[in-house]
Amino acid sequence: MHRLPSSANRSLVAGALEQYCALVMRPKSKTIRQESVRFKTQGPIESYGLKRYSTAEATVAATSKIREKTLTMETLNPQVKAVEYAVRGLIVMKADEIERCLREGGKKPFTEVIKANIGDAHAMGQQPITFLRQVVALCTFPELMDSPGFPEDAKARAQRILRGCGGTSLGSYTASQGVECIRQDIAAYIGQRDQGVPADGNNIFLTTGASDGIVSILKMLVSGRGASRTGVMIPIPQYPLYSAAIAEMEAVQINYYLDEDNCWALDINELHRAYQAAREHCQPRAICIINPGNPTGQVQSRKCIEEVLHFAYEENLFVMSDEVYQDNVYASGCKFHSFKKVLFEMGPEYFNSVELASFHSTSKGYTGECGFRGGYMEVLNLDPEVRAQLLKLRSLQLCPPVSGQAAMDVIANPPQPDEPSFSRFHQEKTAVLGALAEKAQLTEEILNSVPGIQCNPVQGAMYAFPRLFIPSKAVEQAKALGMQPDMLYCLRLLEETGICLVPGSGFGQREGTYHFRMTILPSKEKLKVLLDKVRDFHIKFLKEYGTLEVPRG
Amino acid sequence: MHRLPSSANRSLVAGALEQYCALVMRPKSKTIRQESVRFKTQGPIESYGLKRYSTAEATVAATSKIREKTLTMETLNPQVKAVEYAVRGLIVMKADEIERCLREGGKKPFTEVIKANIGDAHAMGQQPITFLRQVVALCTFPELMDSPGFPEDAKARAQRILRGCGGTSLGSYTASQGVECIRQDIAAYIGQRDQGVPADGNNIFLTTGASDGIVSILKMLVSGRGASRTGVMIPIPQYPLYSAAIAEMEAVQINYYLDEDNCWALDINELHRAYQAAREHCQPRAICIINPGNPTGQVQSRKCIEEVLHFAYEENLFVMSDEVYQDNVYASGCKFHSFKKVLFEMGPEYFNSVELASFHSTSKGYTGECGFRGGYMEVLNLDPEVRAQLLKLRSLQLCPPVSGQAAMDVIANPPQPDEPSFSRFHQEKTAVLGALAEKAQLTEEILNSVPGIQCNPVQGAMYAFPRLFIPSKAVEQAKALGMQPDMLYCLRLLEETGICLVPGSGFGQREGTYHFRMTILPSKEKLKVLLDKVRDFHIKFLKEYGTLEVPRG
Repeated sequence: MHRLPSSANRSLVAGALEQYCALVMRPKSKTIRQESVRFKTQGPIESYGLKRYSTAEATVAATSKIREKTLTMETLNPQVKAVEYAVRGLIVMKADEIERCLREGGKKPFTEVIKANIGDAHAMGQQPITFLRQVVALCTFPELMDSPGFPEDAKARAQRILRGCGGTSLGSYTASQGVECIRQDIAAYIGQRDQGVPADGNNIFLTTGASDGIVSILKMLVSGRGASRTGVMIPIPQYPLYSAAIAEMEAVQINYYLDEDNCWALDINELHRAYQAAREHCQPRAICIINPGNPTGQVQSRKCIEEVLHFAYEENLFVMSDEVYQDNVYASGCKFHSFKKVLFEMGPEYFNSVELASFHSTSKGYTGECGFRGGYMEVLNLDPEVRAQLLKLRSLQLCPPVSGQAAMDVIANPPQPDEPSFSRFHQEKTAVLGALAEKAQLTEEILNSVPGIQCNPVQGAMYAFPRLFIPSKAVEQAKALGMQPDMLYCLRLLEETGICLVPGSGFGQREGTYHFRMTILPSKEKLKVLLDKVRDFHIKFLKEYGTLEVPRG
Repeated sequence: MHRLPSSANRSLVAGALEQYCALVMRPKSKTIRQESVRFKTQGPIESYGLKRYSTAEATVAATSKIREKTLTMETLNPQVKAVEYAVRGLIVMKADEIERCLREGGKKPFTEVIKANIGDAHAMGQQPITFLRQVVALCTFPELMDSPGFPEDAKARAQRILRGCGGTSLGSYTASQGVECIRQDIAAYIGQRDQGVPADGNNIFLTTGASDGIVSILKMLVSGRGASRTGVMIPIPQYPLYSAAIAEMEAVQINYYLDEDNCWALDINELHRAYQAAREHCQPRAICIINPGNPTGQVQSRKCIEEVLHFAYEENLFVMSDEVYQDNVYASGCKFHSFKKVLFEMGPEYFNSVELASFHSTSKGYTGECGFRGGYMEVLNLDPEVRAQLLKLRSLQLCPPVSGQAAMDVIANPPQPDEPSFSRFHQEKTAVLGALAEKAQLTEEILNSVPGIQCNPVQGAMYAFPRLFIPSKAVEQAKALGMQPDMLYCLRLLEETGICLVPGSGFGQREGTYHFRMTILPSKEKLKVLLDKVRDFHIKFLKEYGTLEVPRG
């Protein structure tokens, strides 16, 4: 076992490890109970947001006569236990703890935590699109319809949406599928995006963010036991909602690896390999694609999409295309092609048969409206009975948040050139996307200037996912601590610089490779500072573990 | 088999049955495929919202060479298939179909469909609480902070909420548990409601409506196989979210029957009976209580709550108290007691040990803001590790909609007597609750004046759940059609009067008894019309089936 480099690091790593174990391991019940009592008095569990206990709970903790709890780590739903979700996992809890510490006057080698762990544009200072907010405010408080401060096109949008709501109120439940006129607007938007490929509002389901739709479709697909259990093909690296949902539903995760040496492209041979290997122990029934990629930032070529769709056609797979970054394409020569459009172009044999669900959201793109939890999915070629079942399943949630539906409508139906809000809207949209493109390039350039960091072009989406060279001594140390090496790396980065990134292990990566995911969302100035700090930390890290000679390629 | 009374009825009932069968039955795959093709050309499936098909789909339907679909009724997740959700089920699809027919100039014996099937206040014309909408509009479009049209207290609330949001924007993700200051406000609200019983913001989890919280807690609790499978006790009649979630999770539903002859009171002996009977085939681990009751409208006495909590303590059950109607108490002598407050008053042995989750929502009460999908749950005595798991599970959804969180904050932190919005707020709140109380009484009185209808007092919540005498010939006819008798009743009521109610069979009821659920939400004038129509229909229905002599009691 490699010795810890310093006592400060030891306490950091040990503390984090303790928390990590509490989250992911499954010790026996009695042990846990003792642990929890100890945690209550000693406090390291506080980083889970469990800081304050009521006096009553403290009293229980202090006495030894504890009535057996109904819900313990032993009795907890094992599928819930199996879920991991790195984007909001240990590293973020640690960041929250440090932020609290700073607020309470604690001393750190930095004054601010920079959270580049999650695609949360507004939290990073991006301003909302004015027109979108005007429409939602008008829907929320229709008395504003009389206000001269609001443009007529925003008022018209709001009135159209409200006419689609029961009692013309945003406070009514809508149809579970979403407000009808919003579904029509979305269908029109898709038709335009796909250059005339037909789209039907009856195939649109509004959702609570894209995640909600993805979970619904997966839930429909999962069945069987043992070797007939549903297998779901997902890219590695992936956005961990997929692995989490698959684990929760006890489906089988089938990994297909993206080709890091080829800008994270999807290689059709790798799909065949993964499929064939999986068939022995499960029934592969769906393939998930994220395009543009999260966390990997690649934009798929039209040819690649066609290959995937042909593969899905041949193997009878349900296609789930996560296209929430469809507006986030930066690299010259790259272009977003929707799976639906390519399917259409492949001819009626494909377009009339392949079952496809594609997902979009208000959270990304140029609006970044995560908090509204707006989104939709478009489904194609669903068996009508199955579709009725999907509607039933969706109706359990009653309806998606109506202000999120309204926000989604604005994205589908933005101001037109002859409308009063057009120029402001256009200017705001262009500014956001332009700045993102600049930051994508800046991120790639600075990261590639660091010895031991190698970053593919950020062609689209909102993240860089560079490969890290981690010295073998650091790897050994992490392993001795039962921790992934890039988790150790990110924990130390956080503790020493205040920068919060997510370790690559949370997204999946080829054995023996290490990465982190960082968003490109901070302002250009802050992003430069962040990247400089990452560089300095990385060099220091390499030195500390006795290696500055790093292999390239 | 009893003959159908008329050919018009035959087509109605047969059409509905066909749809019903498609929804709940599971014919073999090939049959389904043929059926769906037939549905596509003939159209009765349209009532599922499947009206328009794209040309491409129609082409597929017309050809015989259909590529096998991946997702069919045969391969669909059987747990999804098992779900039933009457509140948005067949009867509502039928109502939508009739509404479309009326819009398109179709002729019916009425001009309007009245949807009294769901607690959707704004859709029934209830006006939003001004202060709530002002705060949410200010949060949505902060430029309004400069507007003299908005009161200072609304601005202060909005500023406080925005300060709790990343980048002071409603568009940022919040913590998965919800905005911290909103959780604090909710804790303060609970403390005040429960006359000083301590409440802690760290025990509050904001949710997407109450349903979302209920599903999360159930998900945590479900485990085991066979006789060790988790059993969940629910009242009968119940709100069908419970039965649906339990079915979807393959848990065991344990019915305890409310006492209709005693104003739907919860009888502790019935709890014991149900528990003992269930222990033979499952592991009862949770008890759900809805207070005030949905669909039954009763308000539980303090004594009854104490008995339930004592029972849960003794049997080591997790308590889930659905208290979304806590502000909806109308009957004199009735008062809302929270389960938490009663637990506290039972002493530390109870208060420090019984695991409790209670649920609240923006959708009901005096605000009726269903569309915002706001809500929270308060958890008590959770094992700290389990709590970390709950947080992890919740984080998969990223965060509840932030405008819903803001709406929830206003309910927790309404204008105070010394603030400018107080008098308007107070007047609006009192008016809504006063009107509901009047309508509760009116509904009970008119229903009880109808021979063959018997209605318990609507002490609280938003529904009447009267018992219907259905003549044996109608029962036989329904059975011959494979339909519940009260479904037949409600379908005919809808077709003949335009009134949409939910059959009691969707909520559960004692064998051989029949009910419907109707909301008391329409305006007083419309409610009177509705109740008169129900009376006339009921009398006609009895006559048609040859019975006007009905048993009482």
